Amino acid sequence: MAPLADLYQVSMAYGHWRAGRHRAPAAAELFFRRPPFRGSFALGAGLAEGLRGLRAFRFSAADVAYLRSVLPSTIDDAFFDYLATLDASEVTVTAIPEGSVVFARVPFLQVKGPLLVVQLLETTLLCLINYASLVATNAARFRLLAGPDMKLIEMGLRRAQGPDGALSASKYSYIGGFDCTSNILAGKLYGIPVRGTIAHSFIMSFRCLEEVQPRELPPRAGGDPVDLADLAVSWLQQVCDLLQTPPSKANQGELAAFVSYAVTFPCDFQGLLDTYCVRRSGLPNFCAVALALHQLGYQAIGVRLDSGDLAQQSKEIRGVFQACGAHFQVPWFGTIPIAVSNDISEQSLEQFRREGSEIDMIGIGTHLVTCPLQPSLGCVYKLVEVNGSPCLKLTEDEEKMTIPGMKAIYRLYDAAGHPFMDLMALEEEPSPSAGQELGIRVLGQLEETTKVIPTTVEPLHRTYFRDGQVCEALPSLPEVRTHAQASLNLLSPAHRRLHEPQPYPV
Amino acid sequence: MAPLADLYQVSMAYGHWRAGRHRAPAAAELFFRRPPFRGSFALGAGLAEGLRGLRAFRFSAADVAYLRSVLPSTIDDAFFDYLATLDASEVTVTAIPEGSVVFARVPFLQVKGPLLVVQLLETTLLCLINYASLVATNAARFRLLAGPDMKLIEMGLRRAQGPDGALSASKYSYIGGFDCTSNILAGKLYGIPVRGTIAHSFIMSFRCLEEVQPRELPPRAGGDPVDLADLAVSWLQQVCDLLQTPPSKANQGELAAFVSYAVTFPCDFQGLLDTYCVRRSGLPNFCAVALALHQLGYQAIGVRLDSGDLAQQSKEIRGVFQACGAHFQVPWFGTIPIAVSNDISEQSLEQFRREGSEIDMIGIGTHLVTCPLQPSLGCVYKLVEVNGSPCLKLTEDEEKMTIPGMKAIYRLYDAAGHPFMDLMALEEEPSPSAGQELGIRVLGQLEETTKVIPTTVEPLHRTYFRDGQVCEALPSLPEVRTHAQASLNLLSPAHRRLHEPQPYPV
Repeated sequence: MAPLADLYQVSMAYGHWRAGRHRAPAAAELFFRRPPFRGSFALGAGLAEGLRGLRAFRFSAADVAYLRSVLPSTIDDAFFDYLATLDASEVTVTAIPEGSVVFARVPFLQVKGPLLVVQLLETTLLCLINYASLVATNAARFRLLAGPDMKLIEMGLRRAQGPDGALSASKYSYIGGFDCTSNILAGKLYGIPVRGTIAHSFIMSFRCLEEVQPRELPPRAGGDPVDLADLAVSWLQQVCDLLQTPPSKANQGELAAFVSYAVTFPCDFQGLLDTYCVRRSGLPNFCAVALALHQLGYQAIGVRLDSGDLAQQSKEIRGVFQACGAHFQVPWFGTIPIAVSNDISEQSLEQFRREGSEIDMIGIGTHLVTCPLQPSLGCVYKLVEVNGSPCLKLTEDEEKMTIPGMKAIYRLYDAAGHPFMDLMALEEEPSPSAGQELGIRVLGQLEETTKVIPTTVEPLHRTYFRDGQVCEALPSLPEVRTHAQASLNLLSPAHRRLHEPQPYPV
Repeated sequence: MAPLADLYQVSMAYGHWRAGRHRAPAAAELFFRRPPFRGSFALGAGLAEGLRGLRAFRFSAADVAYLRSVLPSTIDDAFFDYLATLDASEVTVTAIPEGSVVFARVPFLQVKGPLLVVQLLETTLLCLINYASLVATNAARFRLLAGPDMKLIEMGLRRAQGPDGALSASKYSYIGGFDCTSNILAGKLYGIPVRGTIAHSFIMSFRCLEEVQPRELPPRAGGDPVDLADLAVSWLQQVCDLLQTPPSKANQGELAAFVSYAVTFPCDFQGLLDTYCVRRSGLPNFCAVALALHQLGYQAIGVRLDSGDLAQQSKEIRGVFQACGAHFQVPWFGTIPIAVSNDISEQSLEQFRREGSEIDMIGIGTHLVTCPLQPSLGCVYKLVEVNGSPCLKLTEDEEKMTIPGMKAIYRLYDAAGHPFMDLMALEEEPSPSAGQELGIRVLGQLEETTKVIPTTVEPLHRTYFRDGQVCEALPSLPEVRTHAQASLNLLSPAHRRLHEPQPYPV
């Protein structure tokens, strides 16, 4: 694949080359200016893919021919020959480990190398890190809201920016704290647990019990097969008596679909309750089939709701499950997992928490993968040093100012183990030590000097790429996921808060 | 690549297979329930890629092995053997031509074939069509707001959902009416015109004129090379006199960067004005270099602004260009194209129009590719017929109801040539004719019957896929783009309006 680059980067590369500055030593930093989603933090992600992009960085003969066709004809031929020789073998990259909590204006990636290559890498790195970090952060927020015990499923395949966007969404949602994905390809490629339920289309494809075939199921412990449809019909009568709802209101196509699914997956039976009326059809039909299965020694694994007031309905459903469990003496019935989906957002999770719910599992698609609260992280990649001189951009727009020079970055922890500040020091300044008083200035209040005494000091960056190769072992996806949760858990509650958090000083 | 599918589709496929219903003739429709961005319409896009996905639809041996590892162990082995034989050779697809205006609830794709395959195709088609149509629609809205003469550049590579999302964004923005992209790879793969400017990092990489090398440029008409830096310095003095601004405020690094770029691209010189102060540095430096170039017979091609009040500044800049053009007798100087960028949204374009501006070209990234007004189109794919029986979903949520049965779809035009209604009729109903009175019911007001007399009737769907092959010649990307603009131009002003449009009846 040709390097991901915007055309102006190649034009400017020619400018540097013509000026003989293409090999000038340069350094750039990648950071975001404002934390996403009005929180205080982001999760840094996309590093492994960024490093892969670096290793593959190269213009093929076809790429060069294409560039020659679109750039001005005045360009010197030797420049194109030079482009064809480029790679990232002289580039060094340091970064915060993937999955770490990162804060605004603190570089989470630093790139050093020849000016021309450092500049050409801009879009590759931004493209691979921006969305990765955004969706990992979004997933982490859902995880913080849902609490550690809720099962979270990523279901965004059909809502992402095409197949590749969907795969990124699955991977980085997992890093951010989701448990599994519905996307088969993501499971296959990345080893993320995959999980599926049942769809309205399956339910709707049945009209009546006569369509169910086969309908016989042997008991789990062995023995003669039993007609599950007949068994379910007799249970439906009992369930309807208990729930005081007329059996005639239970949709026959839905019952047929449940029976068919149960015969097919007796150990993994689950129901989707809201194709027709939940209370008078979905719920009685599900209970009837689940109780019929129970009679044969099988246990249903869950239900899903995809419309209406999910928190309220989950409580009603839990009540019905408990009533059935007690009445028919089936203890596990009261704890059948309840899954919900349907346009779940942070607001939905807050509502579930406020109103209480009996939800065990949440499937999130659109609001996870498209990040509607802020669909782009807005990372930038800025030159901070060329030929040993720091670069400074002084515009009228203070937020767009760049802090010049290569920096060493330290995270300072307080006595309770919470990080309270990220410290950027020029590389030549002495490194801070635990327990020693430091004079610092906080960004945004540069005129004042403050003193702090950190209990622990952690240098944040490691060198990941040198001499064209990844030089630090990269953790596996589950390891990154574990690191992300650990990094989030260290945050003090004031910084972890998702709304109006205390700003994190830098 | 394995088919794009959610796990539950394969589980349900097994259900159908076990029940012997996998080959039952079925039909599904793809549509959206609400028009995006609170407008009245969308542009249907992604058809060509969807058809490519159909042709490639197949489970490899590795895919099947993976599915076997994640699905319940109770599944019959013969099902996996069957999966390995599947393809789309028995599927027929009809659709509205790519790039057409489409309305809510009108299917823009209909799929017929064996139930199991029709259902497995759901996610593939949704994933390829949802984002494509969303971004094409978003681009079309920008085009409608900007008017036909504004140059629009897509610059979203670094803000999209990874490389593939960015390529989709470039392609479908082009279909929606953009002129070009900054993404080199999109240019190379799709033949979309690419266009680049110059970045702050290039400007910032220079400190002083001494760094510029080479600095000599021969006049366009031939002759001895001239030191462009010296020439620019002398012009800077004259420009500063005219603009009454002190030459000492013009940043020397910026001047150096402009001179270097001009020597490198004498026929394509452009300036980025806002690295330092626009009025006292960027503008005088640009004018000085452009006038120096002019003296040698070259013409600058434009400037770009990336911060501040863009509309207001564009007017000031135009004033300066006109003043320079008049004072130094350089007629083309007054019309140098002004490009702007920096987080441009629909609101920005409305503001430009309201306040007036001298902007000729707009670069749009984040707000184009991430569609923050609505980051997902929410297309759905619903079974409408199985085994000849229509499928109906009757939930408590009226908007989620499905209209059963296979439909023929006609667009009805009024005497002025504007489409005024899309008509869905069951396939067995007689087709409407131009000039004949029709009794119709409007969705949402089903109890009333209305009469309409269309001047023209257009059947909307064509058959694109049959017997495993694309059976209708697919138009080229520029042809689709032209069709999209024609389709938009037919819309009556009431439907074309981007805010509170008149709802389009269906």
